[in-house]
Amino acid sequence: MSEQSDELSDHLTRFRALCSTIQDLQQAQGLLDWDQQTFMPRLGAEQRSHQLAALASVTHERITAPELGELTHQLSEQPNLDQDLRADLREVARERQRALRLPRDLVAERARVCARAQSAWEEALTRDDFQLFQPHLERVLQIVRQAAEAIRQDHASAYDVLLEEYEPATSEQALRQLFDELGPALTDLLQRIQGSAHKPDLSVLQGRFPIRAQEAFVLQVIERMGFALDAGRVDRSTHPFTAGTMWDVRITNRYREDNVVPAIFGMIHEAGHGLYEQGLDPKRYRDFSGGYCSLGIHESQSRLWENLIGRSRSFWRFHFEPLKQAFPGVLDRVQLDHWYTAINAVRPSLIRVDADEVTYNLHVVLRFQLESALIAGQLQVPDLPGAWREAMQRLVGLTPASDREGVLQDVHWSAGLFGYFPTYALGNLYGAQFLEAMRRDLTEMDELVARGELRPIKQWLNEHVHRPGRRDWAPQLCQRVTGAPLSPAPALRHLERKYGEIYRL
Amino acid sequence: MSEQSDELSDHLTRFRALCSTIQDLQQAQGLLDWDQQTFMPRLGAEQRSHQLAALASVTHERITAPELGELTHQLSEQPNLDQDLRADLREVARERQRALRLPRDLVAERARVCARAQSAWEEALTRDDFQLFQPHLERVLQIVRQAAEAIRQDHASAYDVLLEEYEPATSEQALRQLFDELGPALTDLLQRIQGSAHKPDLSVLQGRFPIRAQEAFVLQVIERMGFALDAGRVDRSTHPFTAGTMWDVRITNRYREDNVVPAIFGMIHEAGHGLYEQGLDPKRYRDFSGGYCSLGIHESQSRLWENLIGRSRSFWRFHFEPLKQAFPGVLDRVQLDHWYTAINAVRPSLIRVDADEVTYNLHVVLRFQLESALIAGQLQVPDLPGAWREAMQRLVGLTPASDREGVLQDVHWSAGLFGYFPTYALGNLYGAQFLEAMRRDLTEMDELVARGELRPIKQWLNEHVHRPGRRDWAPQLCQRVTGAPLSPAPALRHLERKYGEIYRL
Repeated sequence: MSEQSDELSDHLTRFRALCSTIQDLQQAQGLLDWDQQTFMPRLGAEQRSHQLAALASVTHERITAPELGELTHQLSEQPNLDQDLRADLREVARERQRALRLPRDLVAERARVCARAQSAWEEALTRDDFQLFQPHLERVLQIVRQAAEAIRQDHASAYDVLLEEYEPATSEQALRQLFDELGPALTDLLQRIQGSAHKPDLSVLQGRFPIRAQEAFVLQVIERMGFALDAGRVDRSTHPFTAGTMWDVRITNRYREDNVVPAIFGMIHEAGHGLYEQGLDPKRYRDFSGGYCSLGIHESQSRLWENLIGRSRSFWRFHFEPLKQAFPGVLDRVQLDHWYTAINAVRPSLIRVDADEVTYNLHVVLRFQLESALIAGQLQVPDLPGAWREAMQRLVGLTPASDREGVLQDVHWSAGLFGYFPTYALGNLYGAQFLEAMRRDLTEMDELVARGELRPIKQWLNEHVHRPGRRDWAPQLCQRVTGAPLSPAPALRHLERKYGEIYRL
Repeated sequence: MSEQSDELSDHLTRFRALCSTIQDLQQAQGLLDWDQQTFMPRLGAEQRSHQLAALASVTHERITAPELGELTHQLSEQPNLDQDLRADLREVARERQRALRLPRDLVAERARVCARAQSAWEEALTRDDFQLFQPHLERVLQIVRQAAEAIRQDHASAYDVLLEEYEPATSEQALRQLFDELGPALTDLLQRIQGSAHKPDLSVLQGRFPIRAQEAFVLQVIERMGFALDAGRVDRSTHPFTAGTMWDVRITNRYREDNVVPAIFGMIHEAGHGLYEQGLDPKRYRDFSGGYCSLGIHESQSRLWENLIGRSRSFWRFHFEPLKQAFPGVLDRVQLDHWYTAINAVRPSLIRVDADEVTYNLHVVLRFQLESALIAGQLQVPDLPGAWREAMQRLVGLTPASDREGVLQDVHWSAGLFGYFPTYALGNLYGAQFLEAMRRDLTEMDELVARGELRPIKQWLNEHVHRPGRRDWAPQLCQRVTGAPLSPAPALRHLERKYGEIYRL
């Protein structure tokens, strides 16, 4: 080997080592965050906020280190780089740019403020008292806007800057266009559904479902999906979520005894996220381009499993018997078809995470409208509960009687996650588009699902969506996997077909 | 304020911020370690080792940072510093010196060597074959001695240097004197006990103790001790341990259905550690001198609660009824006095962790004698199993039939922990000396304990032992709390009195 290529090889080794350490530190942060939402004692919040701030600070230090900048620059100038390394260099450069523009104190302060705000939010939710949360949310919003302003450049809006953290290569403007096409189509479908004389019989969902039996049932389901329990865990938390990656993926769920439905679909949803993280390339998961592609793509995995597989007729052809056996006597007189239509009933509702497939995206549109107004300074925090009630009435046709069922229902804003909600709707769209592509390869998909064979779906997703990681950004990944750019059409086709049949439209 | 004092105040603020971040990072490491021993999925070990290595690396970077060195130097030169700051500066300087003297390659090599040695030790233990472990132990010993030489200066021995990491301000020489007094006295007491005609009836301990009932019972006990469950947790693990500090202290325990005794005293022991961490000064717990004083003092807290309180007659005057109620029917015919003598039975045994109060310290003396000889080069690894058997016969009167019950029983040496064992015996001695001091203040201590009122004990320890943290090192703390230097006399007085009565010596 020549002296030059020796030097190059040293640079590459050092670059990879610096990058993996940053990923390792971020994984450590992820564990602290998971712990805070599951097992941390009540009084630990303040202390945890210091720990998270310290980790945020050293991570920021590492990503902004001049040595990493020099290595990135030197390596980027080399010809004939393989595509993974090119993607790593692209992601490192992008994240460095964001981080270098963010003052260090702001990063630490944001971590502290958000940790405290999350505890305040939990308290406010428990007591149904927005006032307890309001000053914390104001502080979060202030610091999030400050951060966006620090990073912003060119023609981007502050909201674009926030979006980019979760969904690179999209924009506020692009989302507005997408939602302008999606929203009216959904409203039209919703109206036709509400005008239908065929109403699912919701009484079939009633019963008493012991929580331990629910846990056992959903565990069976996610094992059939291929979620590896020796590389992951399942716990309870207030708000279901997924944390961790690769060999240590943790999902959580919540349970209520009078209704088994939320636990089933909550768990399938989180296991969809979990399969994505477990399905990354083990050789690249500590590289910058080896992790998940974007939150929209992440959500496509949870939504695909939850709605397109989990709420399909084929899925229940197999799973309805195990469900009945899990709750002896409770569902004895319920027929498969009644169960299927009941779990797919379209009912405008107040809580996003309980929303059906048709109205769900309207909940996202609401949050997108409110948070983009908050960030633009067109809406103030004290006016938020009122604005929420107005928008909920306008979009979904309901007004929440309490903030617990309104503005306090989601954890996101307390955690500083502005620009995050739209990725839920993107997930629905990407998921439907991926499924159309999958059906072209797995022509017998429905038959497999109806036999309880879910692994081929996991394997297809592993190959096409999971293992590439962030080698490409979401729009390019979508083009490569499906042969077309992202469009609302596949999701709308799916909804029209499914609900056309259920409601005989 | 003058310009100079402005500058001083800036230095102080920056010094405190740098120091707290290091503590925060160490707490984060603590949580990752706790998680690894409790909830981490099986396949997560490799990934976790990367996370821990990344945290160790950034923590090392922070403690050796030149800025911290300069600030420490500048502040140390100021007159009239308050005693807490003086203690912080002393601890930072000490830890920096150790960290700076250790070559980074040596640290990495030690980690690798110990990781391999631990695997080899596990294998050797399983197969009861010291030969498998021998070359690894030789390599560990070599590198541990190398590290000690790198740090050593002045008249310290290599073993002193190792000790200092766990127990600052003590020495090999001081320990030898202490143990030369303690050992023969214990051997003498043991011989008199073995010559006694009064033997406790161990059959009263037999029964089936459902594990959930054990958990509920020990939880009641530690709540009575004052362990705060909103600032801590209790979980299960293979080996009981305590992790975390201040508002987030986690203790673990293990259970076996055929014997409730290990779970009771394991839990009281860990809760003793836990109360120490919860009892630190909340204003200083993120400072270098605000944490625990030394491992010997830490162990004094667990041992004091476990043996001096938990195994006392007064304790069971109150707790025997709740115990009987926790296991209906199991202990109905057992009398308090029989229970008390059975849980305090003295039985020379081969395994340290199962040893009683009288023989426990003899196990520690044995390890101290052997490990100090190994470090000094007076004992070679191939001769270690023989030396172990000889010492066990001499000190405890037993000869292990296998190395599994002998030299292979502890993990410590394979992990490079030389100089750690003595802190177990120091804990027993400090604990007994603290208790004598406590009795001078709490003259009705036995009556309180017999009424189940354990909080006054916790409060006394909070004030005298916990809140000072590491402001002084252990010898000075002992002098201040008890009015005398550490001595084996209080521990020996306690044992003579207690076992004199039980065995009617």
